[in-house]
This record gives sequence, C-alpha cells and structure tokens, in this order.
Amino acid sequence: MKYVRFEAQGKIAHGVLAGEIIQELAGDFFSHSDLTGNQYKLAEVTLLAPCQPSKAVCVGVNYRDHAAEMKHELPKEPLIFIKPSTALNNPGGEIRYPAISHNVHHEGELAVVIGKTAKHVKAAQATEYILGYTCANDVTARDIQMLDGQWTRGKGFDTFMPLGPWLETELDPHAAAIKCLVNGQIRQSSNTGNLIFRIPELVEFITQVMTLNPGDVILTGTPSGVGPINIGDTVSVVIDGIGELKNTVVAG
Amino acid sequence: MKYVRFEAQGKIAHGVLAGEIIQELAGDFFSHSDLTGNQYKLAEVTLLAPCQPSKAVCVGVNYRDHAAEMKHELPKEPLIFIKPSTALNNPGGEIRYPAISHNVHHEGELAVVIGKTAKHVKAAQATEYILGYTCANDVTARDIQMLDGQWTRGKGFDTFMPLGPWLETELDPHAAAIKCLVNGQIRQSSNTGNLIFRIPELVEFITQVMTLNPGDVILTGTPSGVGPINIGDTVSVVIDGIGELKNTVVAG
Repeated sequence: MKYVRFEAQGKIAHGVLAGEIIQELAGDFFSHSDLTGNQYKLAEVTLLAPCQPSKAVCVGVNYRDHAAEMKHELPKEPLIFIKPSTALNNPGGEIRYPAISHNVHHEGELAVVIGKTAKHVKAAQATEYILGYTCANDVTARDIQMLDGQWTRGKGFDTFMPLGPWLETELDPHAAAIKCLVNGQIRQSSNTGNLIFRIPELVEFITQVMTLNPGDVILTGTPSGVGPINIGDTVSVVIDGIGELKNTVVAG
Repeated sequence: MKYVRFEAQGKIAHGVLAGEIIQELAGDFFSHSDLTGNQYKLAEVTLLAPCQPSKAVCVGVNYRDHAAEMKHELPKEPLIFIKPSTALNNPGGEIRYPAISHNVHHEGELAVVIGKTAKHVKAAQATEYILGYTCANDVTARDIQMLDGQWTRGKGFDTFMPLGPWLETELDPHAAAIKCLVNGQIRQSSNTGNLIFRIPELVEFITQVMTLNPGDVILTGTPSGVGPINIGDTVSVVIDGIGELKNTVVAG
C-alpha cells in the first residue's frame, strides 16, 4: 500500500494512493484511520514528505562500495549520526545550497519509517515496528563534514533531508534496486541487498540506545557514486518498488 | 524570573516560581500567558525539565581547560553535535547506565533555551531569540563516544540529557560560576566567562545551518574535570543564579 501526505485546497491531509487516485484518510498512518470518502487526483495535489520525523537516525557507512570510495574501513558495528527534524524537505522541494559550502553531495538512501514507539527492540521483532519505506536524500556538505570531523553540521542544514514521494508498506527492503540521478544521469546505482548491516539489526542497534518515535526514520546508508550537486541541478533518488524522489538545487 | 514546568495532582502545568510558591500559567512560556490564579508550593510538585526541545544542539569543545584535558586543539569554529529529544531527563530523574558502556561521564553545562523560531540570526540580535537559561548534564558514554568517533551514540542514550531545575530569564550567561558535583564532591568548577565561543556567536553559527525552534536548547560545552559516574551516584550541576540540577544514576 502507498501512503501519501499531501496538500490540496489549502489543507494538509493523509491518504492512500492507488494508481492516480488518492483516497483521503480521516487521520494519519500511525493509528487506524477510516477513509473520509474524499478523493483527489495525484496530479492535482502537492506531495509532502510522507512523515515528519522527530529525528532521523542515519547509518554512516553501510554499503561496501561506499566504504571503499570514502576510504573507510568496513565497520564492525553500525556508525550512527542524527539529522535534525528541521532538515526535512518534501518531494519536489528545493535543496538550498549553503553559501558557506562549496561541495554539496547527493546521497541516495532507503529510509525506514517507524510505525510505533520502539525501545530495546530485538532484531527478530523489528518488522512489527516498521510501517514502511520511502526514498531519502542524505544531502551532505562534504567540505564541512570533513572539516568538522563530526558530521552534524555538514548534514544538518535546513532542506538537506528530502523524503518521499510516499511511504510504501509492501517492499522487500533487502532486494530493491536503488539509483541516484543528477539531471537524468545515473550517479549511484546499487541494490539494498548490498547493505552491510540489515534493517532488523539496525533497529535493534539503534533502539538499544534511543527510543524511536512513530514517524522517525532510519536512513540506511548510501551506495558508492556520491558526488557534487550544483545550483540549478535536479536530483532524483529512485528505488524500485517505491518510486522517485525528485528535488532541485537552488542558492541558499 | 524563574519559569517552572511541573506535575501536580496528575496534570502537567507551567508556572512562575517566586520563593517557594509557584503561580500557575494558563499556557506555556513561549507566548504570553495569564496566571490562572492557582498556586502550588514548590515542595508539593514534581519538577519537570523546563522545556521539551525538538533537538539539543551541543558545542563539543568550548572551554579551554576541557580542550586541554581531552587533548583537543582549540577549535577555530564551534564544533556542534546533536542530542535527540528522546534523551531528555527531568530534575530528580534517573540517569540509566547502559549495559553496553563501562565509562559513563558527567558533563555539567549551561543550556540556552530558545524562545522563538531562529534562522539566520546575527549575533547582535541573538538575545531577542533567547528565553532564558537552565542547567544541563551532557551525560556521555565516553567509551562508546571514542569507539565510534561520531559522538551521536555515546551521547544519545535515553535519559542522558537532564535539564532543569527551572528556566531563569535573568542571568548574565558569561559570568556565572558553574560546578558539577558527584555525591557532594566537586568534580568540575569553572565560570561561563571561560567559554571559547560566546552565546551570541553560537546562535549565529548554529542558525546559519539549522532553524532552532522554541524550546530547543543549546548546550554550551563543559569545563574541565569530566569523569565517571556510577550506579548509585548522585550527580548535581549547579550554576550560580540558576540553581541545582540533581540526578541519580541507576542500572540501565
């Protein structure tokens, strides 16, 4: 099932997408919601990020090929960092290129959307806490990331976390082709089967440390091929079985 | 003025503290609120963290003495990282010692509480965006912090961010004695006048990157003397002009 969050006729709503038609829900995706009976054509609404995470917990080096290109050793445990809620961006939204950076990169990623409060969850139970999956771009000011050593600033700028275009509940998250394109040219191309640490393991690892709230996301890491985006570019993250998350880059 | 958030008779409320008496507010501290006329004795309520930050932006190495003890060079710019909202703890709350760490440290800090949405704020205007100040303990699993390199996990455990006991609006934030005590013994003792980067500069630096929301906090860094806390310990952060933030350490 595809869940969408959208704006139409000046109000924000949630719905279920089938084909080109959205059936509006009375509530959100995190508890049972009835259909209102209202329906919208997909082309007539503005899609929003499918959830509003209180935090995004991101996994730093989680594809073997990306570890090699970044000259990282293969990690023995997941390496986590946080993108703040204020970095959230919508499908179709503008990524603002900060004046203080000269090397902003795309990082296409599979995002896991948490469905209910998760704390000390074992890997074997992890799927019970997952509502679905969406595409993410872990936009990164690479120069600032490297300068600081800590990744918070380089990855934490407002607009640096596009999510979307919707939340897909039916996906094998370890067998999906993932691509990132800049102006239509393929820059990253891999498969989520290449994850070093798989999703149930990530849920256990993270929730041993911190509680995940409904709507929080785990960004599972990016494959090789990261590289610069520039003002005027269009960048897309495409995951088979989900869809395309497309954003443009503008001056910050 | 001292603003308190508290629980009394099963409900959570905000108020103004004068002496030992709390005058209840109809709303919170972030917009004008009238007094309800209800009053409570301080001794009869349970104090809560004075705000519920959507994020805490923390400054890594911001006292010269702490830079030396951690063998860090003096930073040319602030080094920021994030503690998630889920790490929040109350005055009097229990810090849970994680089973996966063997070296949890106290870090007493002055916290700045943001009063209104702050984005691209210049240092000269920073005070307009600050509601007040409180005490914070940036509890840190030092072994995990060092193992990961990224500080998110070691500093992001649930209960690792006690804030309180209240929010003080009248304080010279660059001239306050700050101490951290474990079981009554002084472990850290400095003055916020020793900050490398002062608060207006921090507000400008951070809001150039990310929007700060009302209730978000900036943890301004810790002085020298950081060291271990253990199960059964009582740890206090005391800032002159604010008060004492006291927590106990229990098994996680």
